[in-house]
Amino acid sequence: MTTLQSIQARTGQPLGEPLAASTPGQIDDAARAAAAAFAGWSASSGSSRAALLRALAAALEAEREGLVALADEETALGPVRLSGELDRTAFQLRRFADIAERGLPFATTDDPAVAGPPPAGHPAMVRLRVPLGPVAMFSASNFPFAFSVLGGDTASALAAGCPVVVKAHSGHLLLSNRVFGLVQQVLKAQQLPAGLVGLVQGGGNDVGVQLVRHPAMAAGAFTGSTRGGAALQAEANARPRPIPFYGELGSTNPVVALPAVLAARGAELASTLAGSIALGCGQFCTSPGVIVLLNDPASDALVQQLTTALATQKPHAMLTPGMRSAFDVGVTHMLAAGAQPLLHEAGSDQAPRPFLAQVDAVDFIARPGLREEVFGPSSLVVRAASVAQALEVLQAVGGSLTVTLWGADEDSADNRALVRGATAIAGRVLFAGVPTGVAVTAAQQHGGPWPSSTQPMSTSVGDAAIERFLRPVALQDAPAWLLARNGQPC
Amino acid sequence: MTTLQSIQARTGQPLGEPLAASTPGQIDDAARAAAAAFAGWSASSGSSRAALLRALAAALEAEREGLVALADEETALGPVRLSGELDRTAFQLRRFADIAERGLPFATTDDPAVAGPPPAGHPAMVRLRVPLGPVAMFSASNFPFAFSVLGGDTASALAAGCPVVVKAHSGHLLLSNRVFGLVQQVLKAQQLPAGLVGLVQGGGNDVGVQLVRHPAMAAGAFTGSTRGGAALQAEANARPRPIPFYGELGSTNPVVALPAVLAARGAELASTLAGSIALGCGQFCTSPGVIVLLNDPASDALVQQLTTALATQKPHAMLTPGMRSAFDVGVTHMLAAGAQPLLHEAGSDQAPRPFLAQVDAVDFIARPGLREEVFGPSSLVVRAASVAQALEVLQAVGGSLTVTLWGADEDSADNRALVRGATAIAGRVLFAGVPTGVAVTAAQQHGGPWPSSTQPMSTSVGDAAIERFLRPVALQDAPAWLLARNGQPC
Repeated sequence: MTTLQSIQARTGQPLGEPLAASTPGQIDDAARAAAAAFAGWSASSGSSRAALLRALAAALEAEREGLVALADEETALGPVRLSGELDRTAFQLRRFADIAERGLPFATTDDPAVAGPPPAGHPAMVRLRVPLGPVAMFSASNFPFAFSVLGGDTASALAAGCPVVVKAHSGHLLLSNRVFGLVQQVLKAQQLPAGLVGLVQGGGNDVGVQLVRHPAMAAGAFTGSTRGGAALQAEANARPRPIPFYGELGSTNPVVALPAVLAARGAELASTLAGSIALGCGQFCTSPGVIVLLNDPASDALVQQLTTALATQKPHAMLTPGMRSAFDVGVTHMLAAGAQPLLHEAGSDQAPRPFLAQVDAVDFIARPGLREEVFGPSSLVVRAASVAQALEVLQAVGGSLTVTLWGADEDSADNRALVRGATAIAGRVLFAGVPTGVAVTAAQQHGGPWPSSTQPMSTSVGDAAIERFLRPVALQDAPAWLLARNGQPC
Repeated sequence: MTTLQSIQARTGQPLGEPLAASTPGQIDDAARAAAAAFAGWSASSGSSRAALLRALAAALEAEREGLVALADEETALGPVRLSGELDRTAFQLRRFADIAERGLPFATTDDPAVAGPPPAGHPAMVRLRVPLGPVAMFSASNFPFAFSVLGGDTASALAAGCPVVVKAHSGHLLLSNRVFGLVQQVLKAQQLPAGLVGLVQGGGNDVGVQLVRHPAMAAGAFTGSTRGGAALQAEANARPRPIPFYGELGSTNPVVALPAVLAARGAELASTLAGSIALGCGQFCTSPGVIVLLNDPASDALVQQLTTALATQKPHAMLTPGMRSAFDVGVTHMLAAGAQPLLHEAGSDQAPRPFLAQVDAVDFIARPGLREEVFGPSSLVVRAASVAQALEVLQAVGGSLTVTLWGADEDSADNRALVRGATAIAGRVLFAGVPTGVAVTAAQQHGGPWPSSTQPMSTSVGDAAIERFLRPVALQDAPAWLLARNGQPC
């Protein structure tokens, strides 16, 4: 029997007893149970879905103290952040409850028959959407609540009418199992099948690969590294019947700071930026990893201010020992690729020190090694000679969850070009503030061109996340009894 | 220099002089010209897009006589069908003109700032959509107008703000070039860059592969065989930066005909079905290739009626000699897999005779060879012992553009199960009529689960086809000048 061991993030010591990895038979059972639950859940009403999602939110909140303490032991993210993350997770569950209750998954486009020959004439058509089926959901390391067992993927999939089989992240195994226990209690209380939400766990890739290959799975949802997501996407594509795979992957989140705003507010912005780089030990998908500055005295000043501000940051322990060592490897690669260090200090075995370096835009564009994400409190200043060259830097980044443009406050040819360059590579473009922190709103878009996500037309945060799990179907000349269902699947 | 030769479909003889295949340099030029045209076209107004699309529709109509005659020589589809297809193509162009003019590509979701801490509080967010970039568009053999140079993919991409590079289909090269000439005249008259619509051509796969691999391409759109589409999708996925690839592939389009409706209207339905199977020599993506019948005397009668009705059909020449020989190979495979022939006659070198065979559901489910699409006037009757077994037949089909349910007129457990089974595998479910003929409407969905399409959440026909080429972007704290653009890209 393969066993898994939870680790205390702050000490690197084992936490609790070893857990058994899911066997191939257990993975198959979970997938089959999800498929069995699909028939009923896909035909469930919006109010049933809302009732489940609200009860799950309440269950999280009722157990807040114990869950946050356990999450903190496993991740070192700190009780304040984790309690806030639990709030966000409950908020998401309730938001998708509202969306289901308002009937969005059942919305139809009516297209009454038009008499006469085609192309103008046509039969009666109604467009509705059907839930895809069981979703293989891969938890993230860095959000043990909001992108985990009861995170946004699970909330939006359940709201869409899809069962979920969660692959627990090995960075917070005990928490995942405890939350899963709460889910099972809620399902039982609501007399819903236990298989509506499943959990599997394993140390290597084999459990996730088996899950995404399982014939019962109809979609994948993933938050994590580009390498891991790309491997699972390849599995999804290589199935006898490929399935959509929604991967939210790595991102360097360039911040372009123009001289005028730096001249006016450089010190404040340097401090804000340093906080964002080191926030949560830099373990955010939206951590600003590239700072693009034009050649200007205000930019020189920002580099100094940022170096100083970042030096005062005290990042906590990283999520896992593997991430801690990967951070050092990433920094080494960055230096080997020619980055000039501005701040480079040895950290502890668990907690790194922030890393800041600088390169010329020409080098950044020429050397792929400088463009790789270093997951953790790290950022690279890229010095560009002109707005045109800054645009080439964005183009070299290629795809990112976010781009931040500081100082594009006036309508000008340069600013239009920067907005065009930013929207061309990112799913979210900010004009103030920092990219860390992703609001759960109707207008949110968390997902951009490759390599930041595998399906840049979709979002994993915000109301539109539910769209990932609903497939359009047109009914032609549908009988009255079916139309009377108002978009509710049979 | 590689040359290409247009072939008269009815005779197999060469038509006109050989044409030069696009060289790698020419493909690169077309892709670069499209990329150069993107900056201006992505920022164009809805009325500019509408003006171009309407002028293209008018240009087609003005040249109707010559275009239809040429298309008929190259495809043998007949002047009536081809003139109707030209109408549909012009209709689509005007429909997307209206969509662009109404401002759909520029629609925004406004999410004003909410004061207070997250998760409820959030900054001002606006969700808009940006055009993806140049689209590599692969023409279909079987719709020389509607899924070709000025077909729905081109119309929807241009309406979205995306340039297009068309890969002409070798089955109607002269027509493609003549239509492309019209496009160039219209672009010139409107003072738009010639590269906004490009054309490349080649005999083998290399031209298409080079096009989809080109760094300037931002999406692919394809209508054709599962094999060809899967190969190009793999190329799109294997790029250093993968791009969305919208492939509308093969489909067997099951028709489930229940005993009661057959008892009442069997003869009429048999005649309708025979016409649909043989329509356009069976060369429709939506040709009904699988007829699912329950064991019942009315089903036995339908088999006889259908055999008789199909025997009276006189399919015209197929589109290309390659398709003609592939039809015979497909029939041979079907027989080798155990299909019992009901109608199997030798055709001419150009035109096949309709093929009809029958199998038991158990065999259909067990043998993948029986489930392969035979492109042409062919259909396979599958006899099921029960509704439950009919559902297993649908599940074995797996993914289809359409499923037709005849006789599901009342609300019953069986009919609900059939609707559930049909919507689970298809993008369009019909309750009357035949699947051939795809209305261009707001509610249309032309695309279903694999293998019928590579992106089952998207449609290649109907208003939603434009969604394929628009990527969401959230603007956070956008400045006033940018908000004043009302969703118009910079």
